[in-house]
Amino acid sequence: MKEINGGVCAAKGFFANGIHAGIRKNKDKYDLALIVSEKPAAAAGCYTQNLVKGAPLWVTKKNISDGVAQAIVCNSGNANTCNSDGIEVAKKMCSIVAENTYIKPEDVIVASTGVIGLPLDPKPIADAMPALVAGLNEKGSSDAAYAIMTTDTVRKEIAFEFEIGGKTCHIGGIAKGSGMIHPNMATMLVFITTDVCITSEMLQKALSADIKDTFNMISVDGDTSTNDMVTVLANGMAENKTIDSENSEFKMFAEALNKVTTTLCRRIAKDGEGATKLLECNVSGAASDTDAKTVAKSVICSTLFKAAMFGADANWGRILCAIGYAGINLDVTKVDVSLSSRVGKIDVCKNGSGVDFDEDTAKSILSEDEIIIYIELNAGSYAATAWGCDLTYDYIKINGDYRT
Amino acid sequence: MKEINGGVCAAKGFFANGIHAGIRKNKDKYDLALIVSEKPAAAAGCYTQNLVKGAPLWVTKKNISDGVAQAIVCNSGNANTCNSDGIEVAKKMCSIVAENTYIKPEDVIVASTGVIGLPLDPKPIADAMPALVAGLNEKGSSDAAYAIMTTDTVRKEIAFEFEIGGKTCHIGGIAKGSGMIHPNMATMLVFITTDVCITSEMLQKALSADIKDTFNMISVDGDTSTNDMVTVLANGMAENKTIDSENSEFKMFAEALNKVTTTLCRRIAKDGEGATKLLECNVSGAASDTDAKTVAKSVICSTLFKAAMFGADANWGRILCAIGYAGINLDVTKVDVSLSSRVGKIDVCKNGSGVDFDEDTAKSILSEDEIIIYIELNAGSYAATAWGCDLTYDYIKINGDYRT
Repeated sequence: MKEINGGVCAAKGFFANGIHAGIRKNKDKYDLALIVSEKPAAAAGCYTQNLVKGAPLWVTKKNISDGVAQAIVCNSGNANTCNSDGIEVAKKMCSIVAENTYIKPEDVIVASTGVIGLPLDPKPIADAMPALVAGLNEKGSSDAAYAIMTTDTVRKEIAFEFEIGGKTCHIGGIAKGSGMIHPNMATMLVFITTDVCITSEMLQKALSADIKDTFNMISVDGDTSTNDMVTVLANGMAENKTIDSENSEFKMFAEALNKVTTTLCRRIAKDGEGATKLLECNVSGAASDTDAKTVAKSVICSTLFKAAMFGADANWGRILCAIGYAGINLDVTKVDVSLSSRVGKIDVCKNGSGVDFDEDTAKSILSEDEIIIYIELNAGSYAATAWGCDLTYDYIKINGDYRT
Repeated sequence: MKEINGGVCAAKGFFANGIHAGIRKNKDKYDLALIVSEKPAAAAGCYTQNLVKGAPLWVTKKNISDGVAQAIVCNSGNANTCNSDGIEVAKKMCSIVAENTYIKPEDVIVASTGVIGLPLDPKPIADAMPALVAGLNEKGSSDAAYAIMTTDTVRKEIAFEFEIGGKTCHIGGIAKGSGMIHPNMATMLVFITTDVCITSEMLQKALSADIKDTFNMISVDGDTSTNDMVTVLANGMAENKTIDSENSEFKMFAEALNKVTTTLCRRIAKDGEGATKLLECNVSGAASDTDAKTVAKSVICSTLFKAAMFGADANWGRILCAIGYAGINLDVTKVDVSLSSRVGKIDVCKNGSGVDFDEDTAKSILSEDEIIIYIELNAGSYAATAWGCDLTYDYIKINGDYRT
């Protein structure tokens, strides 16, 4: 499997574009993205578990319930959430795409991110759509990735090439991470495209299995958005034999999918609001998969631990503390903890108690921008990884200081 | 019931003192507190649910298992947690108290707060104990309250006088809130004394019931400490008829206890690390007590909401978001939200959607230092209150910048 350029346009038959439609006031910032497939594609999606769900999620769920979609339209600047006319506007966005293309409105995936509780006017979207469609092209992934960003500081795109049954296949994705504009809340959006030939059932199976180890293992601030959405479109243009069971080809596809999702997860975590560091927590020796995941998430979500990482402070007591309140059964006197980065690795805790370590070495390890925390529970053979970021002054600035 | 001075010495027969023993380097800061009762007292305690527990908690649990205690010794500057000799040192602290008083070592409650994972040397405690005991006095509550503080900015003391069966009774407490010194974690300690005559069983019953609505409903940063402890000593010197069942006197005592705990809760939340504001979340119309508590805690714990409150930003979408991911079943289209402080009250959300409100009014309401969030779920008749604080630059400074 090799990394390639092209993002969501890396797979055959996918075109994308991004534009400033006028949903945002800042004319330099794109706010409307469109991704289309030449052919109708197998579609799969996963959505926020928040009871408060953005209107676009309901419409998307319905539209891909037949396992088919052909386009993705997404605006930033307004979440179209908690609005009484939300569903109507989300459907209107699908109709606008349909009116300007050969695609049926019920084959459109719709997503929104931005201000919550303010009505979304579909007029700028309707006005901009002809130009957006006219500009669709094979190199449009970056413009689409830019259009879905809110307070993200970098575009998040990735693509891989791999082979299934002698056919060259491609998979790529774009994502927006946890960003914020007033009065908004973080939303993670991920759109993945592939030319692999796979049934929508198997596509959904692969995606649903994958997110448990990837997107569900990220945390920037512990707040689950109302508009989170991950979708995959597979248009079959690689012409491999259709994947319709959990065979070896399915495993190859799942592996490629995982390369895309893991890469995007790391980038989303690293670009968390105000973040200066990517934190990766590797838990091993757990009694179950759930235990491993629970501990990894608990550490990654600890406000105190995140603040310590910002200060490059080897405050391992906060890690033990977060393990202790994670809610699993565990003999804490067996826990070992090490801290690592590209410049080295040190043990800080053995059998639940502190070990002597060199503070200068610890400081230099934790001053890097990617930190790995290894936790060995010595209670079994399960492992899990979670990703997060440090908690910084800029997080407070972005989220508290917006209007002061 | 009337508020009085005296803290833990307000009740008859209680004496306290605080001193600099040398556990902390800063000679201006007291680090050792002692509270004693003239007579052995009925004792009750509640402890952290963190699997990683400070050694003093194990020793205290054992010492009050017979329902009796007569003294409380507490140091700050070292949590005596994750140390291989922790239990031994905690027991030694009890022996040191016993050697200098008429009190049995097994009647001593011991607590510690501060650095985790560093051995606690009992020598300075032994050396300081004679002076600490000699200085015990009826006005010593403030010195004891000062000695248990870490990064708290204010002492937390309260006392009330009330009547049971014609006898004047007193109850008072001191607390330390969520403070931090490197490499430490937040610990909440609360010591309450009363001269009410009550069996240890009923005392434990009153305390266990009370903390569900009080201390368990506070959050500063979501991190459950390894050393949290709340204890009550009741020495019976008010000479009321012994409370030995859930009669009307028990209810009167529980009410007085609740006045103390609620007051301390509010003060702990308001003095959370870096906090500039007390946040109180009042949930009503819940389908169950658990639902009400879960929603109130979810909102109070939301990092995004806390940051918005720091910025006096009426970002009600973050409240809806936190309700939505709280994990209860709910029709979110029925939720109403209002924001309030001493200068006024405004509705911001009705039936799950935004209502027009004046931004200037909202700003002035949220610029006060005590904010109340009213959430009506319109799903039943249960209510709950949670307390927290805003998330500020100073929180990051205290917890991330300690050594940079």
